[in-house]
Amino acid sequence: MRSKIIRLGHGGGGRLTGELIRQLFLPAWSNPALAALGDSARLDLEGQKIAFTTDSYVVSPPFFPGGDIGKLAVCGTANDLAVAGARPEFLSCGIILEEGFPVAQLERIVASMRAAATEAGVQIVTGDTKVVGKGKGDGVFINTSGLGRIVYDPLGAEHIRPGDQVLVSGLLGDHALAVLKARGEFALDYEIESDCAALNGLIASFLEPDSGVRFMRDPTRGGLAAALCEIATDQTWGIRLVEESIPIRKTVAGLCEVLGYDPLTLANEGKVVVIARADAAPAILERMKAHPLGREAALIGQVVGEHPGKVCLETTVGGTRILDIPLGEDLPRIC
Amino acid sequence: MRSKIIRLGHGGGGRLTGELIRQLFLPAWSNPALAALGDSARLDLEGQKIAFTTDSYVVSPPFFPGGDIGKLAVCGTANDLAVAGARPEFLSCGIILEEGFPVAQLERIVASMRAAATEAGVQIVTGDTKVVGKGKGDGVFINTSGLGRIVYDPLGAEHIRPGDQVLVSGLLGDHALAVLKARGEFALDYEIESDCAALNGLIASFLEPDSGVRFMRDPTRGGLAAALCEIATDQTWGIRLVEESIPIRKTVAGLCEVLGYDPLTLANEGKVVVIARADAAPAILERMKAHPLGREAALIGQVVGEHPGKVCLETTVGGTRILDIPLGEDLPRIC
Repeated sequence: MRSKIIRLGHGGGGRLTGELIRQLFLPAWSNPALAALGDSARLDLEGQKIAFTTDSYVVSPPFFPGGDIGKLAVCGTANDLAVAGARPEFLSCGIILEEGFPVAQLERIVASMRAAATEAGVQIVTGDTKVVGKGKGDGVFINTSGLGRIVYDPLGAEHIRPGDQVLVSGLLGDHALAVLKARGEFALDYEIESDCAALNGLIASFLEPDSGVRFMRDPTRGGLAAALCEIATDQTWGIRLVEESIPIRKTVAGLCEVLGYDPLTLANEGKVVVIARADAAPAILERMKAHPLGREAALIGQVVGEHPGKVCLETTVGGTRILDIPLGEDLPRIC
Repeated sequence: MRSKIIRLGHGGGGRLTGELIRQLFLPAWSNPALAALGDSARLDLEGQKIAFTTDSYVVSPPFFPGGDIGKLAVCGTANDLAVAGARPEFLSCGIILEEGFPVAQLERIVASMRAAATEAGVQIVTGDTKVVGKGKGDGVFINTSGLGRIVYDPLGAEHIRPGDQVLVSGLLGDHALAVLKARGEFALDYEIESDCAALNGLIASFLEPDSGVRFMRDPTRGGLAAALCEIATDQTWGIRLVEESIPIRKTVAGLCEVLGYDPLTLANEGKVVVIARADAAPAILERMKAHPLGREAALIGQVVGEHPGKVCLETTVGGTRILDIPLGEDLPRIC
């Protein structure tokens, strides 16, 4: 590791997180399920294929327009299972509280987890609570791990081929800007709600045997850029995106101008990126648009034989920009 | 909830933790797997019986004689599976780091997790890392969730009957006092190492069809007292323990005298309490003693028809003391 100390960006889901994973965790714990680096580990339990995933949530503040840390913890982990082709079934919940945290806020979070779990059709079956002294934590951190049977199997970056189409299920960047608003650091007045939602219903609406889906990922930390750059790295193909086809709310685009953010690197918590066979893409898009969570879905680009390993953006002004994995330090504690 | 704010004791594994679980989490998330309040949830995946568990580790300091937070995180979760009659197979690992944490210390922790995982025969198959700003965390917190097939089924407090024997696999209190030593708060000079160890090997040495084991638990936070009081509550039977038969190191007993701790409420991280049919207990004890982790195992009491719901201790001086669930505030952040 180049860095001798941990930086905020090591948790940002970008280049620094990647370094930590590839240089520290993978060499130490090496096993095939971990090395696949999927949103979930794919396991075989006596012939039963299951997906297993974990995420810790440290979003600050814990309450924001459109959601809270509890909703995020349920939806985020359910989504990591769903994009692995699994039906989210069981969640665990490990909570770390700071001494002095208001019980009333914990009650709101727990109620919100219940509502999100009901919506996603999952059960919270096991839990743990720890408390650290004042000044040794930050209100509330939540870990959820999730478990579900894999119902759709041949998914993975290794199935992607040139010609495949890239789709996204809706508007990008809302979550990051909703959390930013809740932080109140900017004197900008805008109305944006987090897109935080469980995607398993949307995904089930288009994922079926021979639906032509090759790969799915939810573009959370690091946004669309991190998600696509990560899978394109070291491949024999590249990805070409068309900027004007990428759905972004005007407010989001405008705020990004003002604040200096790239909307393609902003976190989403209720969106899925799908890479699918070209002939299957139109039907998938149609099904997405028919679902309440996919109304703004769009076809945003394709897999190409050129510029292998790279993600290129054809910009609105007619140029081409190579997308890079963000370092990860732009917006810490967004999820 | 009586308390309006979270206190350290809400994470102590005693009475306050119990209140939090029964008054806040259970009513909100109610489902049979959670309501059983076992060390692991017992789940049915299309006929496959599996155990699923989670624990967050916030031990302070993260390095202590006999172990560190990484070893603890692997062993603790493996043990929660093992006492549920499951073979620990897969772990997840969610790490929350504080900005500025030394990478060299993270490397030690990750190596220690690898060693513990190898020892326990489990694989760390999925992970997540988050980083919080300086002063918003405390170095390192680790959540591990665990998964394994249940290989021994009819285990549970509902199978316990008067006449059953209570066994413990070794000396109590070492872990808590080793962590206390690492804190350096007391000017006492003593040598104690944490008992932190994966128990699945020991448990497999005596657990087999018809071995007569009714119930197992690892007496971590809250110690033997919390573990036994919790399962005795609301039962039609009680538990009688014989103080002089409970294995406690002289150093531990002496330190408890000086520091005012009750060794029966101190945390252990490599011990199992077993309740077994009377006729089967001698063979179980013999097998325990034959295993390196069970050399000091002992029969410490029995289940009785008297004082239902209570755990009584026949003291060395000839009296009787009713054990109570500790409040949970004595030794925060012990695991």
